[in-house]
Amino acid sequence: MKTIWPLSLYRFLKLTEQIELEKKILDCGAGGPLPPLALFHDYGYETHGIDISLHAIAASEKFALEQGMKLNIIKGDMRKIPFDDESFSFVFSQNSICHLTKNDSMMAIREMVRVLKPGGYLLVDFMSTESSYFGSPSLGEEIGNGEYQYIDDDGDRVLHCLHSDGEPDKYFTGMKVTRIVKTISQNLNRQARDIDVRLEYYVTKSI
Amino acid sequence: MKTIWPLSLYRFLKLTEQIELEKKILDCGAGGPLPPLALFHDYGYETHGIDISLHAIAASEKFALEQGMKLNIIKGDMRKIPFDDESFSFVFSQNSICHLTKNDSMMAIREMVRVLKPGGYLLVDFMSTESSYFGSPSLGEEIGNGEYQYIDDDGDRVLHCLHSDGEPDKYFTGMKVTRIVKTISQNLNRQARDIDVRLEYYVTKSI
Repeated sequence: MKTIWPLSLYRFLKLTEQIELEKKILDCGAGGPLPPLALFHDYGYETHGIDISLHAIAASEKFALEQGMKLNIIKGDMRKIPFDDESFSFVFSQNSICHLTKNDSMMAIREMVRVLKPGGYLLVDFMSTESSYFGSPSLGEEIGNGEYQYIDDDGDRVLHCLHSDGEPDKYFTGMKVTRIVKTISQNLNRQARDIDVRLEYYVTKSI
Repeated sequence: MKTIWPLSLYRFLKLTEQIELEKKILDCGAGGPLPPLALFHDYGYETHGIDISLHAIAASEKFALEQGMKLNIIKGDMRKIPFDDESFSFVFSQNSICHLTKNDSMMAIREMVRVLKPGGYLLVDFMSTESSYFGSPSLGEEIGNGEYQYIDDDGDRVLHCLHSDGEPDKYFTGMKVTRIVKTISQNLNRQARDIDVRLEYYVTKSI
């Protein structure tokens, strides 16, 4: 069965398809069993990805092998992206930056902007403090403003970082934010209040 | 180039793919140059659609012919759906019910529920009164609460109907609403304030 991808990726694809630049895209946080780069590969993009986790890279390699795709996902830290300035027409980070602190998010987004070509586009999404899980014990200990951390069964620290409306604006100083999409998804199947709120920023780099 | 569909359709597809019912779907307001039923056709669904406009049906037929698909879109009024009770596992109406008055929306949704099988799912979306175009002269004269109308160049009346948060709940009495998604999309490319807000209801009929 063909995969149905997280919806922000279709929204980004609809945008990138309108831009007259080389079809070359970078995903920051690209690994996992369903690597989103596959969607862009299907539309003829040269894809590159980085991920901090070798486990996630192995999972994406398994997928790519099964599909006969070359996605080019390598180990890398998005706070120090292993590519030259202005290497990519498009850069995205979907459901990944929420695992960085706010200081690290600033560093990562500056790096994404660095490797983006002039006229290129960037998508970054954020978990919102309006989500019902904001402040919930399941996120662990609050280690900073909207930053939570717990230690998982393997002893690894798992960080979640939530932003309020407008708070991510500060990461995009000097860039042009062209669209902000806020999605409030209320799951009524559960007994408890279950609302997931995301903020997506679509941003371009001036020529 | 492969079409990128309105995002709520991917969200609905993700849901319908999890339901163990015959893959048979109805679109109310199915016509136009990019008929959404094509997405479901690609995933192996038996598709049926109705549309009030012969012009829109002709456009969808052109698309289906080019793609070599049989989508089965016929002329019909969603306030009186020309199918038997419990004919479909899935029914949706995307970006269409906003052209009906609130009284007619009630009638149309009752009809969608009537033709839906027990255990089946329904998606209906609504324009929100939180959109920046709410109350704008471009929508024409206010003929009712959140109902606007203008006369187009062909002399046809064009109606737009906007709902506030929670207002559509009344259409789904006796059904189980499983998810409500509100999407607030802010376009920052324009000089004027440009915010589009949609409400999507995902609803099931008890067995």
